[in-house]
Amino acid sequence: MRLRKVKHAEKTIKTHPDKIVEIPRGAKVDLHSRIDNRPLDLEIGAGKGQFIHNLSAAYPERFFLAVERYDSVIVRALEKFIEEPRDNVLLVQADAQMLKENLEPGSVDTIYLNFSDPWPKVRHAKRRLTHPGFLKLYRSLLKPEGVLEFKTDNRNLFEYTLETMNDFGVDFKEICLDLHKAYDKDTLFMTEFEERFSKEGPIYKLTATFKEETKHEENL
Amino acid sequence: MRLRKVKHAEKTIKTHPDKIVEIPRGAKVDLHSRIDNRPLDLEIGAGKGQFIHNLSAAYPERFFLAVERYDSVIVRALEKFIEEPRDNVLLVQADAQMLKENLEPGSVDTIYLNFSDPWPKVRHAKRRLTHPGFLKLYRSLLKPEGVLEFKTDNRNLFEYTLETMNDFGVDFKEICLDLHKAYDKDTLFMTEFEERFSKEGPIYKLTATFKEETKHEENL
Repeated sequence: MRLRKVKHAEKTIKTHPDKIVEIPRGAKVDLHSRIDNRPLDLEIGAGKGQFIHNLSAAYPERFFLAVERYDSVIVRALEKFIEEPRDNVLLVQADAQMLKENLEPGSVDTIYLNFSDPWPKVRHAKRRLTHPGFLKLYRSLLKPEGVLEFKTDNRNLFEYTLETMNDFGVDFKEICLDLHKAYDKDTLFMTEFEERFSKEGPIYKLTATFKEETKHEENL
Repeated sequence: MRLRKVKHAEKTIKTHPDKIVEIPRGAKVDLHSRIDNRPLDLEIGAGKGQFIHNLSAAYPERFFLAVERYDSVIVRALEKFIEEPRDNVLLVQADAQMLKENLEPGSVDTIYLNFSDPWPKVRHAKRRLTHPGFLKLYRSLLKPEGVLEFKTDNRNLFEYTLETMNDFGVDFKEICLDLHKAYDKDTLFMTEFEERFSKEGPIYKLTATFKEETKHEENL
């Protein structure tokens, strides 16, 4: 994503430690001390936060972590929660991989990936949030029946993701190749991107659970 | 598919035994005696035959079986080959499942499914040509590295097929969610349906190889 410089992002973040946690590379933060006993859902690459802002209002019985690496982006989400606070959301400014060290394995009910950066160049494939390196992280974080939900308007990224997840070992609960044709728009929780791009072409979505790690894979 | 009655279909078929074989339910026909040593490709649901007619002209080094169950449809394919004969095509009027009894396991290089009937009602799912019952047939017919290629304009059928094949156990070689955007049209072999329906929405395509039958599955 191309980033605009947001003035005072760092300062705004520092002055709201009740709403946002920063996890610098290599740091250890006890995230669970900040999360209560409600079922735990996670958005990775939460961007400007519209999705979690709406979802957390609709599901007060669940707890949401909104993870985003760029301070100039997550500050926009923070501004939404300053204006309309929620007791069931914590923003986390961190690389997704930092969650491995800072969340218990098997503690997450749902992981949402919405309109992730497609990283179209093959040499950047490792950075795609559906690369096997990330799928391994999600499988470890999710409860055994926990669900990964992935939405994108990027055809190549969705094709890549279907192939990669099939190789990795998942059960697809749903594959939808034109979300806004298949569902009434009013029933969907949309991101900023989704509202903009759904006019230009189909939105693709899948939900999946992970198969258990196999012997075969351990030998890889 | 809704079928128009074609007069004399049966008679035309009976008078060209060099070009077309009928396999009635329960019959045994030695198809291999009609096939030479060229690599063997198969279209199931060959319809009016345009796809195989063009493909067989482009690949004289391969042998093609075009299988179609309806005589009123396959007679249109037969007419094409009467007009422009090929030495590398045999038409087969039969239910796909009849191939199990009449072709050697592991003898086929490629199976093509083009714009198969979507059978949208759940109670008809067993009739879809990508139902596990048919996938089992294809896995048995194909050589170990043999490829299944599936094309459709029907979104629901493609979604169903991705889910079913992931469950069944395949390696996707390619998934393409908008064939005519991804490829130059002149490089594609199109069916009659494809030419008509590609103006209305995306054409979906996948190619896959089958994983070996697992112990787990034998126990099902």
